[in-house]
Amino acid sequence: MTDREPPLDPSPPARLSLRRVAIDTYRENVAYLHRDCDVYRAEGFQALSKVEVRANGRRILATLNVTSDPRLVQCNELGLSEDAFAQMGVEPGHPATISQAEPPESISALHRKIDGERLGREDFHGIVRDIAEHRYSKIELSAFVVATNRGELDREEVFYLTEAMIASGRRVNWNERLVVDKHCIGGIPGNRTSMLVVPIVAAHGLVCPKTSSRAITSPAGTADTMEVLANVELPFERMQELVREHRACLAWGGTANLSPADDVLISVERPLSLDSPGQMVASILSKKMAAGSTHLVLDIPIGPTAKVRSMPEAQKLRRLFEYVARRLDLSLDVVITDGRQPIGNGIGPMLEARDVMQVLENHPNAPVDLRQKTLRLAGRLLECDPDIRGGDGYAIARDILDSGRALQKMLAIIQAQGAKGFDHLHPELGLLTFDVFAPAGGVITGIDNLQIARLARLAGAPKVQGAGVDLARKLGDPVRAGDLLYRVHAAFQSDLEFARQATEKASGYAVGAASELSHVFVEF
Amino acid sequence: MTDREPPLDPSPPARLSLRRVAIDTYRENVAYLHRDCDVYRAEGFQALSKVEVRANGRRILATLNVTSDPRLVQCNELGLSEDAFAQMGVEPGHPATISQAEPPESISALHRKIDGERLGREDFHGIVRDIAEHRYSKIELSAFVVATNRGELDREEVFYLTEAMIASGRRVNWNERLVVDKHCIGGIPGNRTSMLVVPIVAAHGLVCPKTSSRAITSPAGTADTMEVLANVELPFERMQELVREHRACLAWGGTANLSPADDVLISVERPLSLDSPGQMVASILSKKMAAGSTHLVLDIPIGPTAKVRSMPEAQKLRRLFEYVARRLDLSLDVVITDGRQPIGNGIGPMLEARDVMQVLENHPNAPVDLRQKTLRLAGRLLECDPDIRGGDGYAIARDILDSGRALQKMLAIIQAQGAKGFDHLHPELGLLTFDVFAPAGGVITGIDNLQIARLARLAGAPKVQGAGVDLARKLGDPVRAGDLLYRVHAAFQSDLEFARQATEKASGYAVGAASELSHVFVEF
Repeated sequence: MTDREPPLDPSPPARLSLRRVAIDTYRENVAYLHRDCDVYRAEGFQALSKVEVRANGRRILATLNVTSDPRLVQCNELGLSEDAFAQMGVEPGHPATISQAEPPESISALHRKIDGERLGREDFHGIVRDIAEHRYSKIELSAFVVATNRGELDREEVFYLTEAMIASGRRVNWNERLVVDKHCIGGIPGNRTSMLVVPIVAAHGLVCPKTSSRAITSPAGTADTMEVLANVELPFERMQELVREHRACLAWGGTANLSPADDVLISVERPLSLDSPGQMVASILSKKMAAGSTHLVLDIPIGPTAKVRSMPEAQKLRRLFEYVARRLDLSLDVVITDGRQPIGNGIGPMLEARDVMQVLENHPNAPVDLRQKTLRLAGRLLECDPDIRGGDGYAIARDILDSGRALQKMLAIIQAQGAKGFDHLHPELGLLTFDVFAPAGGVITGIDNLQIARLARLAGAPKVQGAGVDLARKLGDPVRAGDLLYRVHAAFQSDLEFARQATEKASGYAVGAASELSHVFVEF
Repeated sequence: MTDREPPLDPSPPARLSLRRVAIDTYRENVAYLHRDCDVYRAEGFQALSKVEVRANGRRILATLNVTSDPRLVQCNELGLSEDAFAQMGVEPGHPATISQAEPPESISALHRKIDGERLGREDFHGIVRDIAEHRYSKIELSAFVVATNRGELDREEVFYLTEAMIASGRRVNWNERLVVDKHCIGGIPGNRTSMLVVPIVAAHGLVCPKTSSRAITSPAGTADTMEVLANVELPFERMQELVREHRACLAWGGTANLSPADDVLISVERPLSLDSPGQMVASILSKKMAAGSTHLVLDIPIGPTAKVRSMPEAQKLRRLFEYVARRLDLSLDVVITDGRQPIGNGIGPMLEARDVMQVLENHPNAPVDLRQKTLRLAGRLLECDPDIRGGDGYAIARDILDSGRALQKMLAIIQAQGAKGFDHLHPELGLLTFDVFAPAGGVITGIDNLQIARLARLAGAPKVQGAGVDLARKLGDPVRAGDLLYRVHAAFQSDLEFARQATEKASGYAVGAASELSHVFVEF
């Protein structure tokens, strides 16, 4: 509470014994005090107040919950939720002190932003530092996210925010002149091009240390799908060895502490479904810079149920990405793609892993759209190589894929990370299934990305690897009444029921006349 | 989850046994599921997701926390935090179903407001209804509060918001032609004029059924201070009897369910220290309309550490109050007052009760500023009586106070509500004390309302009735170095230490030359 030495007091007032409370409060630190605890009487020590807990030379902020259950905490104890306890790095029973939390220093800057002022570089650094140190409550995080939403940040402010987010965490140095990466802004189920682009460009010799996230609101992230094939939780040293040997990896980024403030902000942005351009640019570019990338190909899909719904919106977003990337000295190539429907056939970790392996094996059932998109993105990324002429990338990527060199590289990466022995010809999909059929004849005129993703999640993806949705028809396909549209796989009866109920409300498919099919004009 | 009949399924998937979890999560419903619970596997059932719990024909929304501690909940159980459990109205062990929460219907309107759009009457009614039904998460509440902050609501929108907040709760009808009330926008410690104005105007014969709040961030609300003297938690029927007999009461408003959406919003506005004009107007006027008031005198204090810091700001706020009041057909008289320092001497429930009783008794130690402000406000309120000529109110109020009729009325109200036997000549103040002295000679040139309020809270107010700050000097008083500025009272050693530490950082007093004393020009 104070910078000076504590007052000389024979009984320091707020010394308690730490206890781990086995409650997962999801990124929000919660401290539990017994209602009869002497300390609790002091000001601000009411439920919802923020308290500061110190032990072992560390300090965290937590929301206070009060309990009368001595099995949770006794009067001389201070309980901490799982994440919070882990942050203290001590054994249960360790002494801890608790005091009212001073408001984070950057709160005045937050209030100025709420009032609509433009903030400067130091303001953003202060706010992001406090966020990374978990000094903001969920309420304050939400206030920041709303106050910086939409037109509230100019591009200079987006740059400051990005820069501050990079500074808040670790930054990787690969000691390579050229470190390439690809990224998609998200929102398209099944869009697992990274798992194909990475082996292609690595087979060519480019360094591509790909770290990915797990799904937050989607039915599978690249890390979830890769985990079907191989271990993805690699210590940083192991990642470095892998990249030295194979030029690439496909690992989960969660252990690397890249842009930790972003992880905290996401915990609020997702429940609000807020994904404003400024926050998206700062989030993506800070993670890429922290991961040591020098060249990035960025995929912006557009479509009626994609994150970006029109070409002018996509172009505006592209310009913002380009402005900030230039300020960061990151070479950026933005590609606007068709986001009208899911990519590939399978939605869910195992189904997506199946599609990926089929493309790598040039299997006759391999989804054509996943292959085509992969080759286009890989071609763009290959052109980061100064020895490759603009326009030649696509053909080179195709050669690498068709010749089996991409498959070999992928198998080597899987082996090196620790193979899981996945048999993509006989994947162990969820055994509980139901099918959804076309209600009438015609042509598939719409597939709702959001609803298909929701169904796959309800069915259990990504936690249940074999759960998800397997699409039998894509946009433009002709159907007769009763034809199979998709099959839902689940492992648990309750999941199957949730998915079935949602399907009955909305199947996610529209069938109509061929003339109703919307077109998108995407540049490539 | 769905409006239609549940599917025919021999084993409904999500039926659990309800359990009360003795954790006070302060207005946020939290549901606890065991990590190994079958239901938890389904989509969205991750920490921080919102779930819908149904039992006994009732339905609540809750944030989900996941635990691995079977002492909290077992695999077949669904735990609910104290408030949430109480809302279900069942015994432990009652069967309940749990499902993912559909987002509140009004979320699309919230998103439009976040995007800066102007909302219509129906939008505000939808949002406020969802808020009152606890369908918004803390994150969504925070988003609403920030998105409607400052210039984001025009006065028509403020009217819609107020109207929706009135509609969200109960509305009292006193069957009286004239029901008067007074209210202060807050922020000034010790400002207990209601406890004096009410007996004065009731002694004159006006109906003044005063319901007040308890302190949220201040060291005492009117309800906390009145509770030193009498019972304030009155059933509504008892309040009606009291008002019939005595024309007035001084009760806690919490049981009356007036403007319940406002109570929910406050749980987010206070931690953010947001008190935007629009929200303030909607909050105050909705509560007054719901309480059945026809005439209101509103006190807006201005000063460097008051909520309103300048006269132009106060005038702008006054106009907004007047606009909305006229639309609501509420007769409103706004009074702008001196808010440069606390009113009276005592800060904290018992100290404030002492001041109030001294004014009523015309005691020589009675704080002059509290008496003067009371007479001015009571005079304005008395002029709501059509038989009193404009300008005569002050003198009539003074006669009622000086003659002891106000004291008699107050004693009758105290007796009727249930007297606590408080002896204001020998109040049982906290026995642990420390004094703060003038560091140098001069004149008191500033008293920081915020810091004095903070000290009183740290010392234990309002929970500890006898805790608080007793001011010995006010603005303009001359002091010599070492003269007493104020005494802090506490009942617990830890509270005393918290207050002492805060005092050492900032005493809240400024001593300087008489010429540095700021003046305010307030109309009366």
